[in-house]
Amino acid sequence: MNDAPRHILVIGMGAGDPDHLTLAAVKAMRRADVFFVLGKGKEKDALTRLRRDILDEHLTGPYRVVEAEDPWRDRTQQDAGRYASAVRDWRHRRADLCERLIAEELAPGQCGAFLVWGDPSLYDSTLAILDDIRGRGTVKFGHEVIPGISSVSALAARHRVTLNQVGRPVHITPGRRLAQGFPDDCDLVVMLDGHESFTHLTGRGWWIHWGAYIGTPDEILVSGPLDDVAGRISGLRAEARERHGWIMDTYLLSPTSGGDGD
Amino acid sequence: MNDAPRHILVIGMGAGDPDHLTLAAVKAMRRADVFFVLGKGKEKDALTRLRRDILDEHLTGPYRVVEAEDPWRDRTQQDAGRYASAVRDWRHRRADLCERLIAEELAPGQCGAFLVWGDPSLYDSTLAILDDIRGRGTVKFGHEVIPGISSVSALAARHRVTLNQVGRPVHITPGRRLAQGFPDDCDLVVMLDGHESFTHLTGRGWWIHWGAYIGTPDEILVSGPLDDVAGRISGLRAEARERHGWIMDTYLLSPTSGGDGD
Repeated sequence: MNDAPRHILVIGMGAGDPDHLTLAAVKAMRRADVFFVLGKGKEKDALTRLRRDILDEHLTGPYRVVEAEDPWRDRTQQDAGRYASAVRDWRHRRADLCERLIAEELAPGQCGAFLVWGDPSLYDSTLAILDDIRGRGTVKFGHEVIPGISSVSALAARHRVTLNQVGRPVHITPGRRLAQGFPDDCDLVVMLDGHESFTHLTGRGWWIHWGAYIGTPDEILVSGPLDDVAGRISGLRAEARERHGWIMDTYLLSPTSGGDGD
Repeated sequence: MNDAPRHILVIGMGAGDPDHLTLAAVKAMRRADVFFVLGKGKEKDALTRLRRDILDEHLTGPYRVVEAEDPWRDRTQQDAGRYASAVRDWRHRRADLCERLIAEELAPGQCGAFLVWGDPSLYDSTLAILDDIRGRGTVKFGHEVIPGISSVSALAARHRVTLNQVGRPVHITPGRRLAQGFPDDCDLVVMLDGHESFTHLTGRGWWIHWGAYIGTPDEILVSGPLDDVAGRISGLRAEARERHGWIMDTYLLSPTSGGDGD
């Protein structure tokens, strides 16, 4: 039996613009023997195509992609404890799947890569899944992480604003947590907000910088006083979700018209 | 008189590792006629060298760099209002300087670039300064922003952790704000902390992931229970600051041993 260790690369691919790829990500992609792709439905189709285009552009030889259907995930839980436990349950099944992929599709001594949209450190489960598998001790591997341009950085760049005001914090939060309150005196970055929480935050004189499919040819950007543009953003979201079958958006809520850094 | 518009590129260079540069950043650098570099002291010397190495690697022809001494900044103000006003005053003088650089060192129709470490959207003043100059109406220019790998993403990647726990927010804060309190139930990313605020946060069972000069050959990483490693980090900071004449560090404080995503 070959005891050479397997190696896993977790590669941040940026927010969707192929030019958001870092030089380190390109080098890492070239080291990989196998690319693992998990996903589901129309979102998966669109993102898989984008991923293939990126691989085709940067890899000169043939490459191997192993695709797997993402396990079903219970998205109905809104209560914080149940939400976390539904996510953990889903991740556990995802870890089962990834464990099998690493053990069966990657020979000892080979290098496998997970391509992660945005940055692997923000609201992505790949690293937790690898920690889970490593804890089981059934298949041994080393791993490293290549950071990527997050959708948050890409949003700010497209709007040419900073996330923070002078000397102030930035609070990055899932949309579903806004209903439980948020700290005063900082800018808010909202992610994973399927329920348009911003529509409940009008009447405060806030400014919003919103973006969907950031960095891709389908990108939509809106900014303005939240009270004035909230309805327009809701309309654009509905249209876009109808057209694409899925939507990925992010926004920044600020007490003034633009962040002003430092 | 030539009325062709000037164009300014604000380019995120990543956290220090030359391979953190994105493909977009490389392309943008190649469009620039002039690079503007502001800085001061030993930090400037070290970072200017790193910047020159990056330019030398990616630009094939000769390029023009205009260096300017950063205006003096009052760093003694701790009170929030006075801090913000000291920063604004410093920025105003920095804007005076940049306005002159753009007007005098960049011909109409030319393209100038500001190279920003990390990501221009986080605790960097370049965008606010450009907005200030634009507001004066004295020199006309367009500008665009190329996002970069922030030191926050780089820190998380080097430690192979996520910034957030399942379904929870991430709070990014300047160190000086921690004394005024921070939200519960989220992970904390602390930046610009010259006063080692983490030493006041022991006794809570927290975990720290700390890094200095992240992505550079001088990188130092420490992680562990805060109570156990706070003293070691203080010692390493003092040594490193003594050796280099400056330090740039960032850390993540988590209620568990590692972020776990999504």
